[in-house]
Amino acid sequence: MLRQAVSAAAAHSRSQLLPRVVFSGIQPTGIPHLGNYAGALSQWVQLQDTEPSTSKLIFSVVDLHAITTPQPPQQLRQWRREALAALLAIGLHPDRATIFFQSSVPAHSELMWILSCTASVGYLSRMTQWKSKLDLDNASSLDGRGVGSKLKLGLFSYPVLQAADILVHRATHVPVGHDQKQHLEFARECVTNFNHAYGDHLVQPKTLISPVHRVMSLTDPSSKMSKSHKLDRSRILITDSPEQIKAKIGSALTDSIPGISYDIENRPGISNLLSILSLFDDQKRSAAQLGAAYSDLSPKQFKQIVSEAIIQGFGSVRKRYLELLSSDNDYLEKVAAEGARKANQSAEETMSLVREAVGF
Amino acid sequence: MLRQAVSAAAAHSRSQLLPRVVFSGIQPTGIPHLGNYAGALSQWVQLQDTEPSTSKLIFSVVDLHAITTPQPPQQLRQWRREALAALLAIGLHPDRATIFFQSSVPAHSELMWILSCTASVGYLSRMTQWKSKLDLDNASSLDGRGVGSKLKLGLFSYPVLQAADILVHRATHVPVGHDQKQHLEFARECVTNFNHAYGDHLVQPKTLISPVHRVMSLTDPSSKMSKSHKLDRSRILITDSPEQIKAKIGSALTDSIPGISYDIENRPGISNLLSILSLFDDQKRSAAQLGAAYSDLSPKQFKQIVSEAIIQGFGSVRKRYLELLSSDNDYLEKVAAEGARKANQSAEETMSLVREAVGF
Repeated sequence: MLRQAVSAAAAHSRSQLLPRVVFSGIQPTGIPHLGNYAGALSQWVQLQDTEPSTSKLIFSVVDLHAITTPQPPQQLRQWRREALAALLAIGLHPDRATIFFQSSVPAHSELMWILSCTASVGYLSRMTQWKSKLDLDNASSLDGRGVGSKLKLGLFSYPVLQAADILVHRATHVPVGHDQKQHLEFARECVTNFNHAYGDHLVQPKTLISPVHRVMSLTDPSSKMSKSHKLDRSRILITDSPEQIKAKIGSALTDSIPGISYDIENRPGISNLLSILSLFDDQKRSAAQLGAAYSDLSPKQFKQIVSEAIIQGFGSVRKRYLELLSSDNDYLEKVAAEGARKANQSAEETMSLVREAVGF
Repeated sequence: MLRQAVSAAAAHSRSQLLPRVVFSGIQPTGIPHLGNYAGALSQWVQLQDTEPSTSKLIFSVVDLHAITTPQPPQQLRQWRREALAALLAIGLHPDRATIFFQSSVPAHSELMWILSCTASVGYLSRMTQWKSKLDLDNASSLDGRGVGSKLKLGLFSYPVLQAADILVHRATHVPVGHDQKQHLEFARECVTNFNHAYGDHLVQPKTLISPVHRVMSLTDPSSKMSKSHKLDRSRILITDSPEQIKAKIGSALTDSIPGISYDIENRPGISNLLSILSLFDDQKRSAAQLGAAYSDLSPKQFKQIVSEAIIQGFGSVRKRYLELLSSDNDYLEKVAAEGARKANQSAEETMSLVREAVGF
């Protein structure tokens, strides 16, 4: 008992002294849109600017997660390249951050297996994502009619892989969106289970709270901007051309109230455009402040301002992205190889502790 | 459709041409006993003698499986060494066979994850081993009372790891005991699922039927010889000294019927000793033939013959085992390192096909 207390205290003080390790991942599901950028990617770039140089930054294209639902190989191959190019295009530097494909670091799967042996099936069965992916309601159980044949083990168990992603790099801080909170909770549960069985070797990750930037669909401002929406013009891709941006913002659903004001309830479309504008504002004004500043404009004039801000904000992103994906450029392959090397090294440090602790 | 038929035919003719690959694994659960030897290990040695030189033989100490139930690390470390030493002591040659620790080949876990994504939770939930390990009856379901909290994901999902063990080395033949048939069936199901989704890349493994050598407990010949039986004298370890063997066989439960005869129903103890004797018989006589040959002996005389046969059969095994485990001998480490190198190479050949097929 005393020994446990001492070791917990030691682990605690150790974590105080350790430099921060920030880990986050993005699924390769095509070119990121403005919602992805606002929700996660812009924060990654910001962390690169604001974290002390002692902090480790680790960003992964989590392609192993992509196959929990059926995925044509050729499409996955393309989406992986596009995701990596997007990370570099938005301004992540491979010299500062470790940027890698999850599938090039086998230790993620290895640690997943080890965590599986102390992770409870009951806990996993209560999680919601496998149910929503199968269009089941939250009260569904594993023995529900037809569930067992539809549900694949990968979809059921991927929170354990997600925990391994974080824990194998001894991440201390994980930027998470609201829909990922349950998974970080589960990762913490995995640490508790493992450390209880084998000693204090894994690090409890903390949530890195981020300013909420929820971007809504341009055609239906009551739902989130999403890759799966059937209308292309419902979302802006980070690689859209100025013409595309102008056309999409121009056709964005607004209302017939005169002038501009920030009022999510009654003016969801205008409020969404204000939020988007705020994202690119040099003076870091909030959506409400911008609403006040542009109150006299017509929707048309206002949309021009929003379009210009996005075009300017994403102009260099688009240029760099297209360069990176041009076929005579092997920079992506070099970045991937160097990222794999650094990520494998980072994971190996944890795995050698883990293997020793488990008795391998 | 035509393309699929052609490719299935090509895969079939390819598998006819390919050299055989035999894979089998043993859990590190302490020094093997006579039952393990008769059931699996003696067959491995025999395969080494009988398989053509083009056949690949791959034998693994499956330590990743050992942690599906709680395992003190210090004990696991010792049992791993003991298992490896036992394999060499019974006569497996690292030059002929690839002998390795599963945990030193991350591709096993990696392929497990990929197979997970096409493996059905329903199929796994109908398998029996997780139920028997938790002392549940076969009708138990995942939503059964208290099942979810007791059942760990590792115990539930290990048939997928076991499938990966086999498939990652493109094994064509797997020697299996009766209790493993369900798992090989599942491995074949995993091949079907993967190949259906990604093309004919994994090889369907076949069962390698082995002569049944079921050795029973010396103290209770109605149950199998087992590591978990409370009486040490119920089993003979492959490293027992001549004195231990004499004492255990001497105290083996028999009956009061005069003479020796093979009659499992009425004389289970004597019949078990006859089966054991048959295992070591130079003339390869069956238990029944040996029963006829020794019909006139008293149980005491007969037990001396059985003891001598085991002592002679295991004499060099014991000597070699003790040598290998002596602390100034680093041969085991060298064998493990070389085995890991060869097994990683074998697994990597499959994984590069698999990664390409999946789209990584």
